[in-house]
Amino acid sequence: MADLVVVGSVALDSVRTPFGKVMEALGGSATYFAYAASFFTQVRVVAAVGEDFPREHLELLRGRGVDLEALEVLAGKRTFRWVGEYGFDLNEARTLDTQLNAFAEFKPALGARHRAAPFLFLANIDPDLQLEVRRQMAGPALAALDTMNFWIEGKRDALLRVLGEVDVLLINDAEARMLAREPNLVKAARAIIRMGPRVVVIKRGEYGAVMVMDDGFFFTPAYPLESVFDPTGAGDTFAGGFMGYLAQRGLTDPASVRRAMVFGAVMASFTVEDFSLERLKRLTSDEIEERYGAFQSMVAFER
Amino acid sequence: MADLVVVGSVALDSVRTPFGKVMEALGGSATYFAYAASFFTQVRVVAAVGEDFPREHLELLRGRGVDLEALEVLAGKRTFRWVGEYGFDLNEARTLDTQLNAFAEFKPALGARHRAAPFLFLANIDPDLQLEVRRQMAGPALAALDTMNFWIEGKRDALLRVLGEVDVLLINDAEARMLAREPNLVKAARAIIRMGPRVVVIKRGEYGAVMVMDDGFFFTPAYPLESVFDPTGAGDTFAGGFMGYLAQRGLTDPASVRRAMVFGAVMASFTVEDFSLERLKRLTSDEIEERYGAFQSMVAFER
Repeated sequence: MADLVVVGSVALDSVRTPFGKVMEALGGSATYFAYAASFFTQVRVVAAVGEDFPREHLELLRGRGVDLEALEVLAGKRTFRWVGEYGFDLNEARTLDTQLNAFAEFKPALGARHRAAPFLFLANIDPDLQLEVRRQMAGPALAALDTMNFWIEGKRDALLRVLGEVDVLLINDAEARMLAREPNLVKAARAIIRMGPRVVVIKRGEYGAVMVMDDGFFFTPAYPLESVFDPTGAGDTFAGGFMGYLAQRGLTDPASVRRAMVFGAVMASFTVEDFSLERLKRLTSDEIEERYGAFQSMVAFER
Repeated sequence: MADLVVVGSVALDSVRTPFGKVMEALGGSATYFAYAASFFTQVRVVAAVGEDFPREHLELLRGRGVDLEALEVLAGKRTFRWVGEYGFDLNEARTLDTQLNAFAEFKPALGARHRAAPFLFLANIDPDLQLEVRRQMAGPALAALDTMNFWIEGKRDALLRVLGEVDVLLINDAEARMLAREPNLVKAARAIIRMGPRVVVIKRGEYGAVMVMDDGFFFTPAYPLESVFDPTGAGDTFAGGFMGYLAQRGLTDPASVRRAMVFGAVMASFTVEDFSLERLKRLTSDEIEERYGAFQSMVAFER
């Protein structure tokens, strides 16, 4: 079992979907990631929150064995807040408000234990900040990155710099096309590989995910659910399952990366079943194993 | 190897995509289906064309061993024509013109050999005509049906009658939702199973296909192509690979139906590589086997 460091947001989310709403619930990319990965390995969170961040959320993460030593609580600041909503097409969020708050002034300085971690996830934040963290690391066995349209459009050069220093990019399909400036997804993935990462994982919401690497293509469906409640955090949870599994095994070979994809899809399928981290809080390792088996039977066929 | 009967259109298609156009090229649901299925088994086409139907197209199908005994050439009539175009989103065709011509008065009367065939495909035509053919059959081992939004909206009652007498429905995702009047695809598939078919195959274009049956779910991706030229006929070719494989083996058990899904996806992936039947005309059995193997490696992962 190898250490896994994540840098990203720890936030309070207010979300409305066609099925209900929550106000200032626990959210943020690093939160979803760390909670999901905690089922597999030791996770260390690098982030900042304000004085108003509820203590119960810290306890929740600590209860999962998540290391919060590098989670700074900034005096006189408020926590990052996001307000969004989804229509019946749950594939895309409409952002109504973003308040960076404590996150705006966040300057991570990693300690020795963090710098030495062999697995690193740069969750969706400012690419300059991602690069700052990447360069503080001693040289991880596997560094992965998430990003979004906002940075692809607004900070393309910085994003290309950090892309040149990671092994894996996790991204959704529209963003992959935007980043590569290429409508065909196969060509887009190949163009991204020329930018640096050797593995590109393209998330396609209800259609699952596809990975492109030397080894060729690998597809995993999304778990077929009768009700998707709230897709917030699905991508970060996917990344948590993906990186958590690889760190647990300490492996980065193609066969392990394929299994990691499926664990990513498994974890994401639970997150969307309820608001915030509610479903993950009820989740057991047996349920994870059972759903992994279900994925196998959903794609298996004989020669 | 068992006989396979298809009833559907044999047509002349004029199609424009962002990559080019063709005028009055060979098309029609029964044509694509029969050509694809001919790689697997003996296919018998039930359809009608006009006097203007080019003899070379008949020779092409005969050259593949397709039985055209029940392809009526109607004196004084013109062949069914379809004019359509696709934008850069190749997932949906815009129909610019449809002339039923010979097809408008088509009243199929099946001979003894056709009635006795164990495998039947009712391609996308008027559901009253589909039911007419279904009821002339002695009792096939497997009857499958395709349909479209036009019939779901315009002839729902007739469609429900024929749905009650088939084993498999092949349909795209938007149409599945429309037929079931249910936005969630899992619930929609289950609602359709209550209408009659025991297997529902939902085609999702570039995202592949999902099958819902007693045996659970089965997903197959679409083959990742660097260029999709013209999606016309992809669904019918999918059905041709699916039914062709089952008829070849004379089997309808769950494991065979899973393999049939993959052969459907394999055949469709070739059709979209060129206009009309151009790619299928150049296709070899070795290429089919090779791509089937590629599908296996695209979804395989270890426990």
